[in-house]
Amino acid sequence: MSFANTPGSPGAARTVFFVSDGTGITAETFGHAVLSQFEMRFRQIRLPFIDTIDKAYAAARRINDAAIADNQRPIVFSTLVKHDLSAVIRAAQGMHMDLFQTFVAPLEQELRVKSTHTIGRIHNVVDTEEYKNRIEAINFSLAHDDGQSHKNLADADVILVGVSRSGKTPTSLYLAMQYGIKAANYPLIPDDFERNKLPSALPQFKHKIFGLTITPERLSEIRNERRAGSKYASLENCRYEVNEAEQLMRREGIRWLSSTTKSIEEIATTILQEIKPDRREY
Amino acid sequence: MSFANTPGSPGAARTVFFVSDGTGITAETFGHAVLSQFEMRFRQIRLPFIDTIDKAYAAARRINDAAIADNQRPIVFSTLVKHDLSAVIRAAQGMHMDLFQTFVAPLEQELRVKSTHTIGRIHNVVDTEEYKNRIEAINFSLAHDDGQSHKNLADADVILVGVSRSGKTPTSLYLAMQYGIKAANYPLIPDDFERNKLPSALPQFKHKIFGLTITPERLSEIRNERRAGSKYASLENCRYEVNEAEQLMRREGIRWLSSTTKSIEEIATTILQEIKPDRREY
Repeated sequence: MSFANTPGSPGAARTVFFVSDGTGITAETFGHAVLSQFEMRFRQIRLPFIDTIDKAYAAARRINDAAIADNQRPIVFSTLVKHDLSAVIRAAQGMHMDLFQTFVAPLEQELRVKSTHTIGRIHNVVDTEEYKNRIEAINFSLAHDDGQSHKNLADADVILVGVSRSGKTPTSLYLAMQYGIKAANYPLIPDDFERNKLPSALPQFKHKIFGLTITPERLSEIRNERRAGSKYASLENCRYEVNEAEQLMRREGIRWLSSTTKSIEEIATTILQEIKPDRREY
Repeated sequence: MSFANTPGSPGAARTVFFVSDGTGITAETFGHAVLSQFEMRFRQIRLPFIDTIDKAYAAARRINDAAIADNQRPIVFSTLVKHDLSAVIRAAQGMHMDLFQTFVAPLEQELRVKSTHTIGRIHNVVDTEEYKNRIEAINFSLAHDDGQSHKNLADADVILVGVSRSGKTPTSLYLAMQYGIKAANYPLIPDDFERNKLPSALPQFKHKIFGLTITPERLSEIRNERRAGSKYASLENCRYEVNEAEQLMRREGIRWLSSTTKSIEEIATTILQEIKPDRREY
């Protein structure tokens, strides 16, 4: 799957719409996962906040216009909760993937409970405990990025360690943002290798420490993007640091993984499986 | 929807599995959206990286065990791409929401293209342009958090402004992480109000500036969590800052929204609709 934003003549990229009464993030996340199974180019248009009949008609017109311009019907992923809005979109010239209508009705039967949209109740995400935890975790992870603070480490769910540029920061932020996990991170630096010990604030928290490593070649590549030609980025220095960091982690009995070919989503998922923070089950 | 992690006696929380050959994030994002339509408690178990037949059988056993322990069948959201793995899971005692099997086959027909799993091709996310853009955007947004750096502002897709604690940092990081948007952010502070001007690095980039505001009451609440009883957190000071910031933004013709009751996802979506960064269509 790849994305193109130029309007398509026939045979060009297929147009895909993501239609939602909210942000459209669920429709888009799911749609991307499905479309990534196809080696084609798609032109994507997101239509969020479609929460009135007038907006639904306007969205339907955009879908119909694309069908005419492309000379083929667009693919439409929608997560509209309300039946009347959903019906307007389904009447447009698209191939419809109506995610909620497909799954909510059978679930109502299975759970023997009416869904909240059926009974017209609306929640404000911002007021939920889960949302507050996520924001708190983002603040925590930022304050504890790169060994900046030793305060409140007891509150951390996870402490990531690894050489500079091994992927600790994006992984910490992802854990916080997606899961509300408080993730501190500490660089392993030449001082630690000479002392032959973990940074002094850490040993008492060994049960929640997780290491990231990386191949020296990839590390050198990444560091050269930032500081081209420096000793810091040289392959020789990267080999030294990675080797020392892995020895240190091995000696201290710290679990680790290599981030070389893993996305932050894959790294985060593996960490959660290993660390098993109290509030979740894996 | 709320989540409980204590194993359920009958009548207790229903068990939900998210089964995937990858991280399970798509299954979980989608499953949460659907389950949030029900006012019930769910006990969630994620089973990621189910990519061999043995792991599929182990996952099926866990589903069957839960069915016995709960005395009711679990809900199973799965995004297994391979038919043989998917078949093993579907044979277990669950209510199956098989996201890929439901949608990929009809899409193959519609697009007249076989999906890549059908032809056995595997992509490494980490090597895609999109993934590299996201990592680069995270680094950019961190380096340009809270007005830390004026360098390369021309490269920013979006520059957020607003009083301290109005939600700029989590929104910037979310835009970067989810969309690969380079989002800088600048606090509006009493110095700016006295000078009656935007921070001096910003006016030339007015077309990509977006403001966040917040009610003084909510702002005071948030600031008191950090610095209880300070002048900074006092309602009087928050009223002053918010009022001055809104006047400044109005005078400078800057678009803004109130973050008071909006999640970072909703704020990010609105910003993308307004700013329309080149690489996406909204």
